[in-house]
Amino acid sequence: MSIDKVMEGLIKKNNSKIVMVVLDGLGDIPDSDYGNKTPLEYASTPNLDILAKSSVCGRHIPVLPGITPGSGPGHLGIFGYDPIETVIGRGVLETVGLGVELKHGDVAARANFATLDEKGIITDRRAGRIPTEKNRELCEKLKEIKEIDGIEVIIEAGKGHRFVVVFRGQDLNPAINDTDPQHEGLAPLKAEAQKEEAAFTAGIINKFIEKANGLIKDEHPANGILLRGISSRPRIPGFKQKYMLEAAAIAAYPMYRGIADLLGMTLLPAPDSVEGLFETYVEFHNKYDFFFIHVKGTDQAGEDGEFETKVSVIEKVDRALPVLLGKRPNVLAITGDHSSPCALRSHSWHPVPVLINSPFCGADNTTRFTENQCNTGGLGFFESKYLMPLLLANARRLDKYGA
Amino acid sequence: MSIDKVMEGLIKKNNSKIVMVVLDGLGDIPDSDYGNKTPLEYASTPNLDILAKSSVCGRHIPVLPGITPGSGPGHLGIFGYDPIETVIGRGVLETVGLGVELKHGDVAARANFATLDEKGIITDRRAGRIPTEKNRELCEKLKEIKEIDGIEVIIEAGKGHRFVVVFRGQDLNPAINDTDPQHEGLAPLKAEAQKEEAAFTAGIINKFIEKANGLIKDEHPANGILLRGISSRPRIPGFKQKYMLEAAAIAAYPMYRGIADLLGMTLLPAPDSVEGLFETYVEFHNKYDFFFIHVKGTDQAGEDGEFETKVSVIEKVDRALPVLLGKRPNVLAITGDHSSPCALRSHSWHPVPVLINSPFCGADNTTRFTENQCNTGGLGFFESKYLMPLLLANARRLDKYGA
Repeated sequence: MSIDKVMEGLIKKNNSKIVMVVLDGLGDIPDSDYGNKTPLEYASTPNLDILAKSSVCGRHIPVLPGITPGSGPGHLGIFGYDPIETVIGRGVLETVGLGVELKHGDVAARANFATLDEKGIITDRRAGRIPTEKNRELCEKLKEIKEIDGIEVIIEAGKGHRFVVVFRGQDLNPAINDTDPQHEGLAPLKAEAQKEEAAFTAGIINKFIEKANGLIKDEHPANGILLRGISSRPRIPGFKQKYMLEAAAIAAYPMYRGIADLLGMTLLPAPDSVEGLFETYVEFHNKYDFFFIHVKGTDQAGEDGEFETKVSVIEKVDRALPVLLGKRPNVLAITGDHSSPCALRSHSWHPVPVLINSPFCGADNTTRFTENQCNTGGLGFFESKYLMPLLLANARRLDKYGA
Repeated sequence: MSIDKVMEGLIKKNNSKIVMVVLDGLGDIPDSDYGNKTPLEYASTPNLDILAKSSVCGRHIPVLPGITPGSGPGHLGIFGYDPIETVIGRGVLETVGLGVELKHGDVAARANFATLDEKGIITDRRAGRIPTEKNRELCEKLKEIKEIDGIEVIIEAGKGHRFVVVFRGQDLNPAINDTDPQHEGLAPLKAEAQKEEAAFTAGIINKFIEKANGLIKDEHPANGILLRGISSRPRIPGFKQKYMLEAAAIAAYPMYRGIADLLGMTLLPAPDSVEGLFETYVEFHNKYDFFFIHVKGTDQAGEDGEFETKVSVIEKVDRALPVLLGKRPNVLAITGDHSSPCALRSHSWHPVPVLINSPFCGADNTTRFTENQCNTGGLGFFESKYLMPLLLANARRLDKYGA
């Protein structure tokens, strides 16, 4: 990736503090029920408005124009990892997100409890979304399977019907299909090696599934398991190696904690309220160079089509902003990892509004932090992977390129 | 580089004249001491204002977002050479900038006169910035060294404490470190080959340094020399080969004359005043297709943090503009090679404002040529390497791509 090549040897340390506040799924589109405004436009944001006036704004494109990113590629982009070249498997993300240590060479899978009928056909891929407590109980049963043909098996319950399985040992390879056929009315698929080197692992996984299904065959509704996102920890440089930054993450959700962990960030406490997240930053301000603060509510509201909820999360961030600004980070970015328009009830391809504030940001004419104003800002439209170089530049952590 | 591949076979000749006026380090950021305006916003520019109204504007990104370019990469970019792929050594730039012919295979170095103490430790890397006259006198002494082991040695004085040394002969290779350790209190480094093929050249250079230091050992304060930026002329296509353009440069400073020379531009007289630069263009208008006119004052003011001086250079360009416009070039671009904000006193990463005027430019709503108005202009934000294709297009020198 050429930006990495260019930055090689230009990165230097100083005492600056960089804060990136990620309102997940922030970007939106105008809604005719709300005066043709977006949530950012509709929200009352006095603190963000003041901040916008001394900031430079723009919009970033998570992958490429028209491409809707998942949470993985979205976050990789804003952290400066080319989301096309850098792929992190979903099994890996879930696993580290649950706080399970994942070593290089391990193979991890996301797993679902499911309901199978007497012929082994899936009647509910999520086993009626069993409660987390039941999930834990079932996982305790599965933990009887400690080892298969010399390969250690590690199981950890997640939320609802979800858990993860980690296989640890020699010669494992994650090139294996999902066993979840993605539709009810079908039987689970066999794990099959997508290349020669994964044949041994596929065998282990099939044996594991058989044993697991045997252990819970008399349960209801969760009497079977499905595996997805079978993957291994990628070998990518973390923030320290890549940017000379001691980085910390203030994020509550497993997925984002997982990504942060893979990139070498220290996971700090993440209270429920936005104010609490910002207070954690204030508390640890002196100990790290870079802070990733993740606010989940905007994405959830977008995915649920809840315009007013999204507005209210934005307003909460606005109200809490003075807590963060009180510590005067040298560089502050406020943005999302992708757009999640309420009208679409899903992630989308729309460019993400971004605001950068620093003494040298070069403030533009933006008077509010909104999609439309960001369209005319001094950052223009840029691929998300350039956000980190821009933050490093504003933090004066990048030397000149060439004489 | 894909733009070169696309343009291959599309470039054609016609009688159009293209003028690129480069106000070095033009881009800036708002200054609170001057009503939160940038120099371009603060300056009184009646002629540029009129021009902006019939022009298309935008901002170009010298290397990639967040990356601050040196003068070399900055100029390579606006001349359409990918600044990541095309690297020109500083020794080469200085040498051609002083008007010394540089052949393929020559090895060139920037050199400093320095002060060494009795133990050979550097006490002043710039020998108290001796006057140019003294420099010339010392270089005359060094010119006694005409040859070392069959390799011709060419010496040329620059300004102050700087000069260049060119080694000419068979089997030379520039893969050699700087002998300048970059800090006082250290001894000069030995020239060392960074690869096998450069061992012979390293030997020549060390013999040269020994002889040179011997010749000036009784001088004060300039009693030693340091070499940097050891490099050879790169094999890159010039403007004629790349664009079918007979190009001329009207630039006073060695660095920019040097780059122009490497790209095959004819070096025209460059008087001190902006008006004088534009008059040179008028005089030679009929003889060339492309004119690079370089105005240094804006960058110098930016690097010195002199807001008002930067404003006054911009106003000088504005006042002189009618001279240039009198000859009605078919395509006129006004821009910089990078930004040099007064607040930063250095080059920066901020996108550079650019204006293109031609009968077919597609004027946008820009009413003044400023950073903020350029943000919303019809060119958008683009990498500097696309400026030349845009100028060729406006000059109707680019055919359609594909049927």
